[in-house]
Parts: sequence; structure tokens; C-alpha cells
Amino acid sequence: MSRIQDSHDDREIALDRVGITDLVYPVSVPDSRGGTQTTEATIGLFVGLPPAARGAHMSRFVEILDAHRDPMTAERVELLLEELRRALGATSAHVEFAFTFFVPKSAPVSASTSLLACPASYAASLEDSFDFVLTVEVPVVTVCPCSIEATGGPAHSQRGYVTVSVRVNGRVWIEELVQLVEDSASAPIYPLMKGDDERAVIEAAHESPVFVEDLVRNVAEKLDSDVRIYWYRVEAENLESVHDHNVYACVERSR
Amino acid sequence: MSRIQDSHDDREIALDRVGITDLVYPVSVPDSRGGTQTTEATIGLFVGLPPAARGAHMSRFVEILDAHRDPMTAERVELLLEELRRALGATSAHVEFAFTFFVPKSAPVSASTSLLACPASYAASLEDSFDFVLTVEVPVVTVCPCSIEATGGPAHSQRGYVTVSVRVNGRVWIEELVQLVEDSASAPIYPLMKGDDERAVIEAAHESPVFVEDLVRNVAEKLDSDVRIYWYRVEAENLESVHDHNVYACVERSR
Amino acid sequence: MSRIQDSHDDREIALDRVGITDLVYPVSVPDSRGGTQTTEATIGLFVGLPPAARGAHMSRFVEILDAHRDPMTAERVELLLEELRRALGATSAHVEFAFTFFVPKSAPVSASTSLLACPASYAASLEDSFDFVLTVEVPVVTVCPCSIEATGGPAHSQRGYVTVSVRVNGRVWIEELVQLVEDSASAPIYPLMKGDDERAVIEAAHESPVFVEDLVRNVAEKLDSDVRIYWYRVEAENLESVHDHNVYACVERSR
Amino acid sequence: MSRIQDSHDDREIALDRVGITDLVYPVSVPDSRGGTQTTEATIGLFVGLPPAARGAHMSRFVEILDAHRDPMTAERVELLLEELRRALGATSAHVEFAFTFFVPKSAPVSASTSLLACPASYAASLEDSFDFVLTVEVPVVTVCPCSIEATGGPAHSQRGYVTVSVRVNGRVWIEELVQLVEDSASAPIYPLMKGDDERAVIEAAHESPVFVEDLVRNVAEKLDSDVRIYWYRVEAENLESVHDHNVYACVERSR
Repeated sequence: MSRIQDSHDDREIALDRVGITDLVYPVSVPDSRGGTQTTEATIGLFVGLPPAARGAHMSRFVEILDAHRDPMTAERVELLLEELRRALGATSAHVEFAFTFFVPKSAPVSASTSLLACPASYAASLEDSFDFVLTVEVPVVTVCPCSIEATGGPAHSQRGYVTVSVRVNGRVWIEELVQLVEDSASAPIYPLMKGDDERAVIEAAHESPVFVEDLVRNVAEKLDSDVRIYWYRVEAENLESVHDHNVYACVERSR
Repeated sequence: MSRIQDSHDDREIALDRVGITDLVYPVSVPDSRGGTQTTEATIGLFVGLPPAARGAHMSRFVEILDAHRDPMTAERVELLLEELRRALGATSAHVEFAFTFFVPKSAPVSASTSLLACPASYAASLEDSFDFVLTVEVPVVTVCPCSIEATGGPAHSQRGYVTVSVRVNGRVWIEELVQLVEDSASAPIYPLMKGDDERAVIEAAHESPVFVEDLVRNVAEKLDSDVRIYWYRVEAENLESVHDHNVYACVERSR
Repeated sequence: MSRIQDSHDDREIALDRVGITDLVYPVSVPDSRGGTQTTEATIGLFVGLPPAARGAHMSRFVEILDAHRDPMTAERVELLLEELRRALGATSAHVEFAFTFFVPKSAPVSASTSLLACPASYAASLEDSFDFVLTVEVPVVTVCPCSIEATGGPAHSQRGYVTVSVRVNGRVWIEELVQLVEDSASAPIYPLMKGDDERAVIEAAHESPVFVEDLVRNVAEKLDSDVRIYWYRVEAENLESVHDHNVYACVERSR
Repeated sequence: MSRIQDSHDDREIALDRVGITDLVYPVSVPDSRGGTQTTEATIGLFVGLPPAARGAHMSRFVEILDAHRDPMTAERVELLLEELRRALGATSAHVEFAFTFFVPKSAPVSASTSLLACPASYAASLEDSFDFVLTVEVPVVTVCPCSIEATGGPAHSQRGYVTVSVRVNGRVWIEELVQLVEDSASAPIYPLMKGDDERAVIEAAHESPVFVEDLVRNVAEKLDSDVRIYWYRVEAENLESVHDHNVYACVERSR
């Protein structure tokens, strides 16, 4: 069924990306302890299409993915991109993997262990060179600084989500980014807490109140001081407890 | 193109519902001040199909909806169901409308006005008799009672959502249900608050801490005391600020 | 922090369900080949709360889940429910697990292998007895019978989703339900197809055109003939290619 | 409660965007026939925050929006941005409105009228100058060219979504973009069709089969020939009937 895709298109319009989206497939990803996590990824696979090509052979995307998914390291992603580019006769290739990464947590007082689900993703391109962006979203607790000042006591707290994307030299683990974000918030989130843990978290959070603006800047400062990271974007979104909308802050920087 | 749908099916399997889903269409809904709100509804329209009928004429659903959508009162919904049942030659008909209803709010100190978006829905059936369920989801503030006790001060607060469904004799306005829910929570939500409003809301919320269990029971007590309401289901879900999962409670009762 | 939850509530309102929702946690589920699949589940855990109890100890839910998640068979789910009911001092317990299950597929001509993602779920309760509902959603191809008749040739085809829920005596594998649904549609879906596969699927699909009503009845007939299954609900939803809304059919039956 | 936000931050980190997200509010938008449509928008409102400012006064966003929402033209959006920038003491402001726009459709044979829901959005910024991007997503029918060639007859068809974003000199109506996309696909989508309409649409669609690549290029050619449009991005995503993943193409161009 390939002849039509291979026919000549005379409209002189190169396409930036042609490929498949919303493919759900099992992959494994490495963790910082030398193991891997099996997860299901929602996947996009694309190539750039030159003006003369009528279409891409879509079945190749699934075929090549199926052969290159275990474990899904940055190096493996680069091989996947090279293979896509070669097999599709393209000048560029691009992939996106979104998955859930679990980080072990130990509650602050009881030391009860549990696993925190953090949405993560890879976005990688191969054109003149290989580009790889790692993203992780981390849930945190935030306490509002101005409500403490205003009331002299009671403050509103809420769940917040911090999304960090980085481009790095060398390797940065998802777990490192999670830790860095948790150190920047009012308090971390532990899926399993006993009563003493909950009291400790609430008290700690009220001693470190942060606006969404503070939270983003706290993370940015830490990323600035890490020599491995040469580009980042940090977004924070708080599910304000006193509103039905969220508050948001974002900063993007490169060295 | 109707002949196949009208042909005889000999498998002896009646279908509970046959119809269309995810139709997005503008409708207007009445409010308690004698006006109407124009909104877009996500709509499902269905009939019961007898064993002998091969299929339903799907185009009739859209045609009949288009003629019966302004304003969408309970009475109009009943007419729509009768028309669907008659036109499709069915013994039962069922419709679902999900839409956003805006409730005017006035902040407690500054009296600043704004509009609170509340997801609402109608679910109605006509078989032996007409059945109509009105549902509204209300965002509220909740403060945790046990964190106040545990710390002697700081408590965690969060946004919660209370979903109330009712079957009534007579008429109950969406605005009445919103008010009833807000009176059952730690504090209401105002989309627009000035500094003094926010302080007042936070202080009030800390004086009325509620578990998700309390919230549901507070709403249930108020519904029990309203003679117009002969069936209800109340669900509450809190976006816990110290967790990335939610806490939930539910009760369903009929007289 | 437990004293408040254990205090007496005098409102005389029993709660049907109290617990946690939207917890994302890794679990493993058994497959028909004797292995297990590691997956992440979105989980709800609940107990019924008697009138006199002010609240449930929410941390117990996560603690008990963390201890009972590998592998998540029906037997393990029953143990989990018993443990929840005992630990929370409740008369009933209820759990819901939603996850993705991968089914190996082999394309009809090339025999190329790939994995098909099927959303699945368990919903289980323990009150007077143990109740377990297994659900799986299967993507399929459907071709419209009446467009073939109307045009004498070209027909519209679309992706459809069939959702089957069953209560069984003995064991029914997810893979069996997937196969049964695929045999009821115009054609199965293969994530990886070469050109010859695609032609074969399209031709086969046009030889077995089905309305959404036919699809549901085809599945129901097969479930009726399986003595292990004593209750089912079948829903089918077609993403009509000539509409932006879907068409839908549903039947629920018990022996 | 404003003092903390106004305090000096010495971390020397300017924030690209600070503001609110996920505010649902009623707005009205103009249509090409001189009228307006009342709709509910999901809204984000942001300013750039200079390094020295600790935080933004979030309540101002809602207050200013509430005063500038009817009707929401590009000119009104510019006024809103100016007001946000001035009131927040910022150097830049950015807003995003996502809403549903209804386009009247008349079926090709029966001339039955109905309304097609098209998701649309505005994304606008004010920094050195005013920038305004209009986006609309249009559902269409696509028939696969290579399946026609391969089988010599039966082809797979599916629903597709084309998303067009434009920057223009002068004014381009949403309805114009919808028409342009529909003329580029295998066939348009009519929410209400009688039997003769459906046959006509299916036959027309099979006479104009398009790959997702063709669809994007067809739209791009038409946009290239419109002198008012100086930048565009076109994305097309087909809900492949023979797969559970989608196929996708994208092109972005400026004069």
C-alpha cells in the first residue's frame, strides 16, 4: 500500500512533523538506584517530511518503537530517532513519551514507606544534533505567606504542582529533580502518613510559606547552581483552597 | 437510508439505551431571578430499543433536540422525551445534559461581585412515568478539624467539590442547592476577593472546620429538612493539600 | 490525630462510602499466560461508615493497599476488602482499580506482533458477600451497514469502543473478553499493520458491517452462551466518521 | 493583604508569567453576521514580573477581566492587556481564552440546519507590541487514499480534527477558517443529516480522499493565498478507524 505515500507532491510545502500520536505502549525507564520501572507511555513519534514526499509510512513508527523500548534511556531515545530518520528517509525526527514515574517516600516521623506518582516525559529531537528534554511534575504542599500575615495565625494551604523541564550535560535523575522541588516548597507530599507525620508536615509547611512566585524562584535558584543543567523551564500551579481557579508562575532560562 | 434500521432483528435482545453521546449544543437554562443563561451543553439522547428493531434512526435525535432547546426547563425536557419516544417508536427515552451554571457571588467584606462557575446536569427518563434528576457541583473551602487539634494551631485547608443530586416535588433552583452546600462547608468560594475578603474567609473557615464526612452529613441534614426533596445523593471530594489523592464521602437517601 | 474521627456523631446519618480517590499506585495483574503485567492503577478505596462514627482513618487505606498489591487477583482483592473492613471497623468495604492491560496482537497477513492497550478495571465490594465486577474496553473497527446499502459501495467506517463488564462464576480472563468483542465487530484493531494487513482488515471489515446496535447484540449473544457469566453490561460507542458526536448502545442482563 | 507581594525580592529572577489559570467565566464573542455568541471561556491571565517584585496581586486579574468581557473582540483583548499591565505595574501581559464557537451548517441535500461546535481560542500578549493569535479546531471527514488504491474499492474513513492558528492583518472571522478547512478535507461534518445527506457526504468524501499530510497542505495552500494572514500553524489529527492511535501532521509558516 506504499505507492501513494511515495508519489511526488508538487505543492512545495515541507511538513514540520508527520507521524502518530496517542499510542499507548509499555516501556521501561531507568531509575537512580540502578533498576528500571515498567510503565505505560503515551507516545508521539514524528518525522519532518520534505516538500516532494506525498506522505510518511505510518506503520514504520510502531514497528521501530516496538523494537526500541526497553529500557528507555536518553541513549536509547537517540537510537530510536536515528532509526526513524533513516527508515522514513527524513531529515529530522521527534519523539514524545509521557509516563508515570514512582518515587519512594519515607514519612518524616513514622518512616512509613510509600510510592509517589510523578507524571514525567521525554521530548527529543534529532535534526542537526540530538536534543533531549526531561520533564517531571511534582505535587507539593504550599502555605500562603500573606494569609499568615493578614490573620496573624490561620493560613490557607493547598496542593501545588511544580513542572520542571531540563536540558542537561551528563545525567540528571528524575529523583534528583523531585527532591529539588520538594526542598523548594512549603512541604513535600507523602502518600502514606500516620498522625504524627501529618502534624509534622503541617507544622513544617507553616514555617516555610511560599507564594507560587517564591516556589518557582526557589527551584530556579537550585537549578542555576547545578552545572549540569544548561536550560530549564519551571512552572508552578497552586490549586488555591480559597478559589476555584489556580495561581501560576513560570520562568525559563538558559546559560 | 432507513430500511436497514427498520428491518427485523431476530436475536431477541432488547437494548436498554440506543442513541447519541457527546453532542455539544447551545441551550439556555432558567435561573432563579426569572432570566435564562445561555450555555453549551454536552448532551446524550437515548431510547430503549425493542428486541425486534434492528436499529434507531440516529438523525432524529439531533433534529428533535434542535427544536426543543430554549429554555431547557424540566417541563421542556419532558416534552423532548415524549417527542423522542414517539418519533423513534420507543417505549422509553432518556436524556442527559451537562452544562456550566454561573451563580453571582458578592464577597463578604468588599461586596465585590463576580460569577462562580458550577458544573450542573439534568438526567431525565420517560418510561412508565417521568423522572428528573438535577445535579450541581459546588466548589468550597474545607479546613481539617483534626489538624487543628493535633497542632493546636496550623491546619491544612483545601478546595473541595460537593456534588448534590436531587429528585423533587415542585421546583428547586440550582442557586438554592449552591447556597445550601456553601452553608455546609468551612467557607464558600468567591472568584473575586480583595485582601479583607480573603482574611475574613480564612478566619471563618478555621472556625468551621469539617471533615469530608461532616460536609456530606451537613448537606444531608439540610436536604432532609426540605419537604420538596424526596431523593438525594451527596458526594464530597476534597483535594487534600497534604496528599496527591483526594478524600471522599457519599450518602444517598430517599424518603 | 485519631481522636476526632473516633468521636461520636449524633446526626444519625450512615455514610455509604468514605475513603480515598485518585490514588495512583503501581500494581501487577495476572494474564492468561501465567504471567503478570506491572501497571499503574488509579485507585479508590472506601468503607461504609455507621451513623455513630464521626470519621474514617484515611491513612489506613493507603497502608493496607501498599501491603496487598502484587499480584492483584480477585482473591487478593477480597483479602484487601476484608482487611479494610476489619481495620476500619466497618460493615462494608469497596474498591475500584482502573488500569491499562496490554494484549498481544499478531497482524492477519504479515503476523507482525504488537501490543494493544485496553483500559480495564476491577470494582469489588464486601458486605453480606463478596462481589467482583471485571470491566474491559476494547477498540474495534466498525463499518456502517446502511451507508453500504445507500451508496451501493462506499461506506463510512470508524473506530469504536466496546466496554464489557461481567460478574462470573470461576475465572474469565481479560484476553477472553477482548477476543469475544473483536469477533463481534467489523474487524479487530492491530497496533502494527503492514500494507497487506491493512488491506485485509479493510476488506474483512466491509464484509461484516455492524451498527452499534448490532455490535452490542453480537457481544451479548456470545456472553449469553458462556455459562461462567451470570451478569453483564455491554456498551458500544462509535466515533462516527461523518459526525462529531458518537453513537451509543447499551444492554445489561443477568441470568 | 498586599504588603508581602510588594516587598523586594533580591534573588534577581524575573518571572516570565505570573497569574491565574483555569478560571471559567462567561464571555461573549462576535460572529461574522454582526451578532455575538455568549459562551463560557476557560481563561488564563498573566503578567511578567520584574526581578525585584516578590509577587503579583492575583485578585486584580479577576477584577479586570470581569470589567472587560463583553464582547471579547481583539480590540477588547488589547484593552484588557493594557489594563492588566498598568494595574499590575508589569512590563508585559498575556491572556488566553478557550471557548466553544458554534457555526451554522446546512445539510447538502435536505438543507436541514444545525450548529457545529468548534473549539476556539485567543492567545494574546502585550509587550513591545500587541500580538494576537486566533485558533479554531474543525472536525472533518477524511477518507484514506491508499486504502482505495489497495482494495480497489472499500476504504477506511474517520473523523479528523484540523487546528488552525493565525496571526492576521485586519480581521479574519472564525467562520472563514472553518469554511477553509472544510474545503480542504474529504467532506465537512454536519451535526444533522437526513439519509440523502449522509449518502451525498459519503460519496463526496470518497471522491476526495486525503492523507493527513494532504489535509494540512490543502489548508496551508489556502492560507498562503490569503494576504491578510502573515503567520499560521496548521495541525491535523485523524482518529484512524483501523488503529487506536491517531495520525498527525503539522506545518508552521510566516511570510
